[in-house]
Amino acid sequence: MGKEKAMNQVDLAKSLSRTNTTKMVLLIMDGLGGLATGIGGLTELETARTPHLDALARTGMVGLMHPIGMGITPGSGPGHLGLFGYDPLRYVIGRGVLEAVGIGEKLTEKDVAARGNFCTVDENGVITDRRAGRISTQECTRMVEMIRDITLPGVEVIVKPVRDYRFALILRGEGLSPALNETDPQQVGLKPHEVVPLDQSESAKKTAELVNLWVSQVRQRIKDQKPANMVTLRGWAKEPGLPTFLEVYKLRAAALAVYPMYKGLAGLVGMTVMDGLNDLESQLACLEDNWDKFDFFFIHHKYTDSRGEDGDFQGKVAEIEKVDKVIPRILKLEPDVLVVTGDHSTPSALKSHSWHPVPLVFWAKQYIRFNPDVTGFGETQCLKGALGQFHATSLMPLIAAHALRLDKYGA
Amino acid sequence: MGKEKAMNQVDLAKSLSRTNTTKMVLLIMDGLGGLATGIGGLTELETARTPHLDALARTGMVGLMHPIGMGITPGSGPGHLGLFGYDPLRYVIGRGVLEAVGIGEKLTEKDVAARGNFCTVDENGVITDRRAGRISTQECTRMVEMIRDITLPGVEVIVKPVRDYRFALILRGEGLSPALNETDPQQVGLKPHEVVPLDQSESAKKTAELVNLWVSQVRQRIKDQKPANMVTLRGWAKEPGLPTFLEVYKLRAAALAVYPMYKGLAGLVGMTVMDGLNDLESQLACLEDNWDKFDFFFIHHKYTDSRGEDGDFQGKVAEIEKVDKVIPRILKLEPDVLVVTGDHSTPSALKSHSWHPVPLVFWAKQYIRFNPDVTGFGETQCLKGALGQFHATSLMPLIAAHALRLDKYGA
Repeated sequence: MGKEKAMNQVDLAKSLSRTNTTKMVLLIMDGLGGLATGIGGLTELETARTPHLDALARTGMVGLMHPIGMGITPGSGPGHLGLFGYDPLRYVIGRGVLEAVGIGEKLTEKDVAARGNFCTVDENGVITDRRAGRISTQECTRMVEMIRDITLPGVEVIVKPVRDYRFALILRGEGLSPALNETDPQQVGLKPHEVVPLDQSESAKKTAELVNLWVSQVRQRIKDQKPANMVTLRGWAKEPGLPTFLEVYKLRAAALAVYPMYKGLAGLVGMTVMDGLNDLESQLACLEDNWDKFDFFFIHHKYTDSRGEDGDFQGKVAEIEKVDKVIPRILKLEPDVLVVTGDHSTPSALKSHSWHPVPLVFWAKQYIRFNPDVTGFGETQCLKGALGQFHATSLMPLIAAHALRLDKYGA
Repeated sequence: MGKEKAMNQVDLAKSLSRTNTTKMVLLIMDGLGGLATGIGGLTELETARTPHLDALARTGMVGLMHPIGMGITPGSGPGHLGLFGYDPLRYVIGRGVLEAVGIGEKLTEKDVAARGNFCTVDENGVITDRRAGRISTQECTRMVEMIRDITLPGVEVIVKPVRDYRFALILRGEGLSPALNETDPQQVGLKPHEVVPLDQSESAKKTAELVNLWVSQVRQRIKDQKPANMVTLRGWAKEPGLPTFLEVYKLRAAALAVYPMYKGLAGLVGMTVMDGLNDLESQLACLEDNWDKFDFFFIHHKYTDSRGEDGDFQGKVAEIEKVDKVIPRILKLEPDVLVVTGDHSTPSALKSHSWHPVPLVFWAKQYIRFNPDVTGFGETQCLKGALGQFHATSLMPLIAAHALRLDKYGA
C-alpha cells in the first residue's frame, strides 16, 4: 500500500477534539494498585472502607488499566505520561529532565539537563566509590554550595541538590545539545569518562567542551573534600516539547499536586500548575476556588505510594480511606466526568512500584455503559467491570468522549 | 532496529488464507450498541425480545468490539472498514470517495472525486451563505441538471446530486491527482479559493487547471440563480485501492445491502454488490438464492441506526426484533460461521453514533470456546463473553479461522 500510515493516538485526539463547557476531574492515588495478603485475602484497596468510591463503581464503570504493558513496571514519569494520553514508549522524558522537574525546576527549550552524582576518586582520579559513601542530602547541599557559582562562557549554569549524593545540572543557552555520552563508567577502578559529542553537530561539540570545562572547575574546587571529591554526569536530555493538553484536547487543565515531580510532569504537558498546596484539604479548597477557571483538573495524592513503598499495608489502607472521604466534595461541584485511579501499582507486599494493572473507577454524569455485577471498588471487582482491561493511553480519549469533546472519526 | 518490521493484519491474513468450501455470514445491524435508560436499566438490545440471538449467544461466543479505539466514535466508513478487517487508522477513505460511493457511484482507479457544496456569493464573488440556504435535494437536483453537461478536455466529468446542498464531482481520466486544496474557505465573507496543486507533480498541476476551468464554467451557468449561484469543493480523494476480500481471504464475497453507502463500502473491498434489494425480506431471499455462488455474505440492516439517530428507543428495539426473526432462515442454510453485530453504537439516548463498544455474537458450527455464564445477547452479558473486549480488525481473522480458511503462522 505504500503511502498509508497509522495515525498515533495523540494526533488522532488532536484531529477530533472540540471545545465544550464540560468539566473533568482525574484524581490519582499514586501507586493505588495492591496485592492481597494471601489466597482469599484482600488488597489494600479492598480492605479500605470506601463507601463513596464503591458508589462510583456501582453507578459508573470500573476496569483495570495497564500503564505500559503486562509485566512492565512504570516509573513515575512514564506512569503519568500514559495517564495523560501519551504512549510512554513513544514519548520519552530523559532522566536529566525528570531530575530537574522533580525538584521543581522549570525547563525552557534552551536547556540541556543532566543527572549528577557526587563520587569519590583516588589520587590518580580513579573512582573508588560511585556514590561518595551515599552522602546525606545535607552534605549534598553543602557540596552544591561549593560549585554553584562556577560560570561558563555564554550559558547560564544551574546546579541544585536532589537527594543523597544526587544533584541536577542544567545548562541554559543557545545551540546546546543533549547528544553527549555519560561520564559515569558504572564501575569503580576506572576514571570518569571525558564528555564527548555523540553526533557530528556543532551544538553537541560545543556542549561537550562546555561540560568538560565545568567538570574540571568542579574538580579544582572539591578535590580536597571528603568523601565527595568528584562528579559524574548522565541522563542528558532536553525538555521533550510534548504537545500540550490545550493543543491536543483543547482543554484548560490545572494540576493540583503537592510534590514537585508531579507538578513538573503536569507542567510538561502544559497544565497550569497550582502552587502552595500541601495536603488534600488545600488541594480540595483549590479545586473549589478554581472550578470555573479550568476544564480539566488533575489531583495527585502521593501517600498511597509512600506507604506502599514502606511496606505499610494498614498505612496505605488509611491513605485510601482519606481520599474516599473527599469524593462527595468533588461530586458537589457537579463534574461531568470523575475518574479515580493510580499511575501504577505499589503493593505493600513488594515495597516498590510493580507491573500489576491499576484499578480504575470511571464515573460520568451521562452515557455510561453500566457494570451491574460490580458492587464496589477493588482489584477483584474490576475484573467484572465494563471497561475490562485496557491500556492507559485509552483513558484520556474515554474521558474526552464522555465529556462530549471528541468529534466522530470519518464520515 | 533495522530489519525487523511488524506485519500488518491484512498482509498477515493474506499470507495465511486458503480456500475451502465453508460459508460465512456477517449480519450487521447498523449502530447496534446502545445505552441503558438509567442505572439498573436495560439497553435497546437488552430490552428487545431476541430468542434466536440469545440462543446463538448461549451456543456460541459473545464479546464487545471496539471499532477504532476506546472513546473514539466511528463514522460509517471507518466502522465498516474495521469490520472488514482493515485498520481504519491505516486505511483512510477520502470524503470525496465516500460521497460518491454513498450515492452508488462506482469509482475506477482513474477517478478523482470531491464533495461539492452549492453556496451563495454576492456581486463581488464573496460567500454570503456556505450552504445556499440549505437548499432542498430537489433544488440541488435542478442545479446539477444545469451543470452536468459541462465538458473538460480529455477527461470525463460526472456530477450527481447527493442531498440538500451537497453534490458529488468525479473527474475520470489518465494522470489525475487528488493533491488539491479545498476551495471552501470555511467561513462567509471570503471568496472561494482557487484550486491549487498541493504537490509538485504534473498530475496535480493538470488536475488543478481542469477543476478551475470547470468551476469557472459552473459559475457562468448558475450566476443568475438564487440562492445557489456558486460551488465549493473539498475532500479530494482517489479510490483507495484496498486489497480485496478475494486477494486477502480468497473469499468470493457478496454484499446484501439496501443503502448505497454500504453497497459502496463493500464494493471498495471487492465484494459483489447485489442490486435491487429494498428490505430484509428481499435480502434473505437473495441470500437463499445465491447461497451456492459465494463464500461470504455481508448483510446490512440500516434501521437500527436510523431509529437510534431519531432517539427512538422503542423503534430501535423493534428493528432488533425484526432482525432476530430472520436468524432461523439463515441457520437453515447451514453456514459454518454466523456473526451478528454492528459497525458502531448509536444509543437512542445520544441520537448519534457513539464511542461505546459494540455487542457481538459469534456462532460457528464447530470449534467454539464456549461462555457458559452467558444466557443471552446484550451489552451486559457480553462483558462475560468468551471473546472479551477486542478490536474490530480481529473479527475477520476469527471468522476465517472458524471457517478453517487460515493456515498456521510459522512452522
